[in-house]
Amino acid sequence: MTQKIWTIYLSGEIHSDWRERITSGVSERGLPVELTGPITVHEDSDDCGVAIFGAEENKYWHDHKGALLNSVRTRTLIAEADIVVVRFGEKYKQWNAAFDAGFAAAADIPYITLHPAEHDHALKEVDAGAVAMARTPQQIVEALGYIICGKIPVR
Amino acid sequence: MTQKIWTIYLSGEIHSDWRERITSGVSERGLPVELTGPITVHEDSDDCGVAIFGAEENKYWHDHKGALLNSVRTRTLIAEADIVVVRFGEKYKQWNAAFDAGFAAAADIPYITLHPAEHDHALKEVDAGAVAMARTPQQIVEALGYIICGKIPVR
Amino acid sequence: MTQKIWTIYLSGEIHSDWRERITSGVSERGLPVELTGPITVHEDSDDCGVAIFGAEENKYWHDHKGALLNSVRTRTLIAEADIVVVRFGEKYKQWNAAFDAGFAAAADIPYITLHPAEHDHALKEVDAGAVAMARTPQQIVEALGYIICGKIPVR
Amino acid sequence: MTQKIWTIYLSGEIHSDWRERITSGVSERGLPVELTGPITVHEDSDDCGVAIFGAEENKYWHDHKGALLNSVRTRTLIAEADIVVVRFGEKYKQWNAAFDAGFAAAADIPYITLHPAEHDHALKEVDAGAVAMARTPQQIVEALGYIICGKIPVR
Amino acid sequence: MTQKIWTIYLSGEIHSDWRERITSGVSERGLPVELTGPITVHEDSDDCGVAIFGAEENKYWHDHKGALLNSVRTRTLIAEADIVVVRFGEKYKQWNAAFDAGFAAAADIPYITLHPAEHDHALKEVDAGAVAMARTPQQIVEALGYIICGKIPVR
Amino acid sequence: MTQKIWTIYLSGEIHSDWRERITSGVSERGLPVELTGPITVHEDSDDCGVAIFGAEENKYWHDHKGALLNSVRTRTLIAEADIVVVRFGEKYKQWNAAFDAGFAAAADIPYITLHPAEHDHALKEVDAGAVAMARTPQQIVEALGYIICGKIPVR
Amino acid sequence: MTQKIWTIYLSGEIHSDWRERITSGVSERGLPVELTGPITVHEDSDDCGVAIFGAEENKYWHDHKGALLNSVRTRTLIAEADIVVVRFGEKYKQWNAAFDAGFAAAADIPYITLHPAEHDHALKEVDAGAVAMARTPQQIVEALGYIICGKIPVR
Amino acid sequence: MTQKIWTIYLSGEIHSDWRERITSGVSERGLPVELTGPITVHEDSDDCGVAIFGAEENKYWHDHKGALLNSVRTRTLIAEADIVVVRFGEKYKQWNAAFDAGFAAAADIPYITLHPAEHDHALKEVDAGAVAMARTPQQIVEALGYIICGKIPVR
Repeated sequence: MTQKIWTIYLSGEIHSDWRERITSGVSERGLPVELTGPITVHEDSDDCGVAIFGAEENKYWHDHKGALLNSVRTRTLIAEADIVVVRFGEKYKQWNAAFDAGFAAAADIPYITLHPAEHDHALKEVDAGAVAMARTPQQIVEALGYIICGKIPVR
Repeated sequence: MTQKIWTIYLSGEIHSDWRERITSGVSERGLPVELTGPITVHEDSDDCGVAIFGAEENKYWHDHKGALLNSVRTRTLIAEADIVVVRFGEKYKQWNAAFDAGFAAAADIPYITLHPAEHDHALKEVDAGAVAMARTPQQIVEALGYIICGKIPVR
Repeated sequence: MTQKIWTIYLSGEIHSDWRERITSGVSERGLPVELTGPITVHEDSDDCGVAIFGAEENKYWHDHKGALLNSVRTRTLIAEADIVVVRFGEKYKQWNAAFDAGFAAAADIPYITLHPAEHDHALKEVDAGAVAMARTPQQIVEALGYIICGKIPVR
Repeated sequence: MTQKIWTIYLSGEIHSDWRERITSGVSERGLPVELTGPITVHEDSDDCGVAIFGAEENKYWHDHKGALLNSVRTRTLIAEADIVVVRFGEKYKQWNAAFDAGFAAAADIPYITLHPAEHDHALKEVDAGAVAMARTPQQIVEALGYIICGKIPVR
Repeated sequence: MTQKIWTIYLSGEIHSDWRERITSGVSERGLPVELTGPITVHEDSDDCGVAIFGAEENKYWHDHKGALLNSVRTRTLIAEADIVVVRFGEKYKQWNAAFDAGFAAAADIPYITLHPAEHDHALKEVDAGAVAMARTPQQIVEALGYIICGKIPVR
Repeated sequence: MTQKIWTIYLSGEIHSDWRERITSGVSERGLPVELTGPITVHEDSDDCGVAIFGAEENKYWHDHKGALLNSVRTRTLIAEADIVVVRFGEKYKQWNAAFDAGFAAAADIPYITLHPAEHDHALKEVDAGAVAMARTPQQIVEALGYIICGKIPVR
Repeated sequence: MTQKIWTIYLSGEIHSDWRERITSGVSERGLPVELTGPITVHEDSDDCGVAIFGAEENKYWHDHKGALLNSVRTRTLIAEADIVVVRFGEKYKQWNAAFDAGFAAAADIPYITLHPAEHDHALKEVDAGAVAMARTPQQIVEALGYIICGKIPVR
Repeated sequence: MTQKIWTIYLSGEIHSDWRERITSGVSERGLPVELTGPITVHEDSDDCGVAIFGAEENKYWHDHKGALLNSVRTRTLIAEADIVVVRFGEKYKQWNAAFDAGFAAAADIPYITLHPAEHDHALKEVDAGAVAMARTPQQIVEALGYIICGKIPVR
């Protein structure tokens, strides 16, 4: 009934292929979505600030300049998203992912979490603010298919 | 004078053909509108949560997962609408329709109610916040024709 | 740790003593709350518009004038509330209660529903936006005791 | 020059005495602050939902009900705070702390992080949005003394 | 049930005693209201700008400086009001009153109009956005008595 | 440097050809603007409510239904405008024009007034909130040419 | 008619006694105002960041830490002010004063500028957004006396 | 991954070719950006108000009319920008640039400053609110290349 292009921001883990799996999933189904996300080249994301604006002796400010620059992209794209998907992988602290979820919550943008069961208890506050919790990229694709087009998996 | 496409969200009852009648009415008149609305396949709307994210033993959480998923669509599309039409049919509680009206009111989106006279007293708070109350889909189409193009029915 | 007075708006059903039970419950526990709500004298709530501003021959406008006047109180007090409790009784349409829930949802005010199990399915969209669903006024009092003071019932 | 009472929300770790140290520090200096924060009794915070609204067989919903109830307190008090302090301890995932920081960021509430140097790199996105990063509760107290009263440590 | 002090801004006509009549009316009934409004000394309101900041040769800028200074008071107090009463007298253009009504409408502050029947047609757009239209100051007082305390005139 | 289409809402008087003069002026200069405005057929604007939703015996409600319906168009288009032009003609009360100006002011949309010198004093509050005051449609066209394209009349 | 305490933020120059003159002026007249402002001890304002959180080798980050800490006070107090007074002295760049004016403008807080005539042209954009431009602290006091109490200087 | 066109507002100094250097830089790299900014013809910017709306004897009002007219363009385009670049040259007061930075800060639009090292201390409050500080237009182009496309200069 509608021709709206839905914008989906993919936040979080950058060490597995979950973004690619969602990308190919929505493509196969022909869903009218535009997928956005942070810069996912780890080293560039760390060093962008000093590479562009000049070196810092202090590692803290090295990181700071990069993180601020990345924030321009992430905050702008999250604020424009219809839905945010927040992925927590098996490893690492991933505090930026939880930060993005909190940001989306306060900005009234619905978000879906994507994480293994082992994180359920530690993520209960983050999940409580979510509209859904998924285990697999496939479920994300199916959720988008339903939200946007009303397509539902065969039961 | 303007080329704006008006977005009209059609909320409420899913058991009669009122959406179709509005759709054909605006089409006949060539009104520049895009009609949006919830997923109207009743069973899918009830079961979408468990169909996608896994079964729940407890019926409450079964419903909860589905309702949260549907809310992504409904809240997003209501927030983007220029006008919301809220239809109350003869039967059922239809609390979701009244919820949508309250949501539109707080979000400062004008809404028009559409209901039979027998509900007038029970809907007086909902009607009080509306910009108009209609009895028939035909009146909705005429109202859109006037608001958007200044066309008025022959008197 | 804090001296904040929490404002709790009690929306919905006016035919049972649930407001009184919450009032005495929070009083017994000495919770720092201020309870607000609509005018609950049914006849006055219906007739206030014409009683003050003059009679209407048409019942629709009779109701309309009253509902608009009531909306000044209800919208103002809901907007100022920290928490809204929305009660659905066994009978009647109670669309104003669902409207208030939708209004609170869009205004980002957390709300708790209070209703019997028989309404669970029909209220699933309203419950999906709530921070909790309660069966008894006693549970509302306990929830307030925990949220505000960290008091928890003996397990 | 001003009699404003500043509200400071203390978010994050609940396993060390940092809240007490800030509380006694601001008390010693007589700073006009009101300190707020989440319920810090770990077990109650986990079980509040089921203790009040009834048991859940599924651990996910057990956690969910509790986390939603806690969110009423945390979101309300964060939204009312002038400054949020977000503490990350040595251990655990502490995703709720990062979530609170993101929430404060989107709600335009200034926040100060408090964490050991070992977390600097992992917290760079969270620190980038902060107005300051502290290593000790004493520094938080001194920062509040300066912000509110212009008191500065002897140099 | 509540101790809230309601703030009522009285906008518009400054040539009759309607403000005094509302003031004594709410006082007699002991309503918990605080009445605010513009500076009503006509000459001071016209000349305040030049009296304070220096004379202007051009009458347009003479008026402009005064009107801007008055706007600090009027906009601040309207924005803080719970309810705005907008009075249109028999004479004069009174465009500032209609301006205040439009301002309140966009700021989502409920307003009640107060005017004689002869203005009904010319004020239909202003009345359409109001929560009530009154003919007499007495009706305003009664409306406040009902909204705030649930008191209704004897029928 | 930019391809933005500026949206200009033309509010107020409907008895002279000022809208046409602005329309042809911006057309001659090829300004990238879209002009919007209310329905300007006086009789339709008065009667649209009853023509669509049914007759009212009471003239007040006759007007009310029409004014509410018109408000959907006017509020929506004003809220979407980059600039509002508010025209006051020589005659009539024109309270709706002042209402629109107040609405634009509170919604932070810049507006330009357009009126003869005889109204200067009575419109001083409305002019005080404006970004400019014009005497002729030609000046409006020139102002748009400057704001949008930096074109300035020969001095 | 009102008991409101007006909050006035005094931004800008810290090298003359203009704040003291306003303070004694409002005190003499007994105006119900609370005056707020930045920390005005120049050296502390420069060094607060490193004095509290530790030294920086790089002067840029030395300044940065201090400026961010000061921003907590200035943004919080500006956001809470009813009126901001922005003072530009004869010397220095004073970019922070112009920054505060821009901040107030976007936050819809009325501001009054206070500066000598020599700056008129360079400050024309800042003055254009102000509700008044004053030459002396005495004029600020008189403006507050009029805005708040309707007192006007003898003409 | 995204086809978003980023809008970049270039604020500040109009005496050097920094805008042209950014324009050609983003063009060479094919970045999907739209560059906007104020009218940069100095004389027109000063005189636009009187050229269009009529002469003023008083220089203050001459400037005022022009500055208000320019503000329509600058505020509208800043509010629509994804990123604001604020340039401070070697000379002049440039208070309008600092004003724009403060405006962007309060409107939650990320801004990057561009200035020589000699201004570092005087601009510390303005830099503290920025997401980056650049020394050359080339760095601005590289920052945009990274933010938008993830392109990073060779290290």
